[in-house]
Amino acid sequence: MQSLPDSANRLIEEFSRLPGIGRKTAQRLAFHLLKTEKESVYRLSDAVKDVKIKVRECSVCGGITEGDPCVICMDPKRDDTILCIVEDAADIYAFERTNSFKGKYHVLGGALSPLDGIGPDELNIGNLLDRIQSGMEIVIATNPSVEGETTALYLAKFLAEKDVKVTRLARGLPVGGHLEYTDEATLIRAMEGRTSI
Amino acid sequence: MQSLPDSANRLIEEFSRLPGIGRKTAQRLAFHLLKTEKESVYRLSDAVKDVKIKVRECSVCGGITEGDPCVICMDPKRDDTILCIVEDAADIYAFERTNSFKGKYHVLGGALSPLDGIGPDELNIGNLLDRIQSGMEIVIATNPSVEGETTALYLAKFLAEKDVKVTRLARGLPVGGHLEYTDEATLIRAMEGRTSI
Repeated sequence: MQSLPDSANRLIEEFSRLPGIGRKTAQRLAFHLLKTEKESVYRLSDAVKDVKIKVRECSVCGGITEGDPCVICMDPKRDDTILCIVEDAADIYAFERTNSFKGKYHVLGGALSPLDGIGPDELNIGNLLDRIQSGMEIVIATNPSVEGETTALYLAKFLAEKDVKVTRLARGLPVGGHLEYTDEATLIRAMEGRTSI
Repeated sequence: MQSLPDSANRLIEEFSRLPGIGRKTAQRLAFHLLKTEKESVYRLSDAVKDVKIKVRECSVCGGITEGDPCVICMDPKRDDTILCIVEDAADIYAFERTNSFKGKYHVLGGALSPLDGIGPDELNIGNLLDRIQSGMEIVIATNPSVEGETTALYLAKFLAEKDVKVTRLARGLPVGGHLEYTDEATLIRAMEGRTSI
């Protein structure tokens, strides 16, 4: 807006570049910061910069970390014989929140998507080869999307030659979901994968 | 989360302090910044800090500005004889977006709210007195909330002694709204304020 101070306009501009933040939300955030005490605003500014200065990619798993290798790769209590392959570093923390998986992770850094020019060479697969040990279990935990499924099939084929057990996440009804509102593809998977009780 | 790098945790913490941003959104934003190129992230960080360094309160209207007085107060093309009183600086820009109001503004910095300890002395009313000139129109544009209405009544009573015309914003149906979903209070105002066509 013309009459808004330049720095406020610039902040609104920067906020609206963030995913899921439209112009109205960006304005609300900017006006909120204008009313917030200086210390808190500086803390936010520093936290934004810090994350870029300090956080790097783990050279082993491709996850995010401040030290290298990351705490998960370095953890002696974690099971080295089970490796969970995910698309993004954020997916690691989805599993970590469940506090139930005790193996290690490998981040592909995306999924195969020929239309976007992402082939096997663009993914962190070379590193994966070095980590594979005979007898280990590889859990393919790519997203249940077209790209994720394609990647899972590619990996499964490629891992079939190795002496490893390849598994994938179960497909079925999400906990707390309703049959009535579940899409057909999920229902088919749920029926196909039915288990005895 | 335990295994997330400290700086990432701190950023998630800071993002979740912002209004309307919960933990999940904060995480999504943090992971987005981790994947964004350094320059953009630094630009966001600087924009956040800059807004606090550069923006101050206009000594005339109480709005936000980099220079003092603000561009609106300094604009010779604006009508000095009509003054719109708003609660917050953000409200100015709601009117400015309409591109139709050509008077000036006065920011109260809140609304009367005895329960929160906000009385007339906490609002920017002293300054308002200095700006009142005989014959001018004062548009009271406080929010249509209990506090806003209380403030409007207080101001109207207080301005009645001055030689000014006091008006307030029209109440009625919002454009694009549906009668069926309009609350009773608004419908009553819309009926009371009906105009001939």
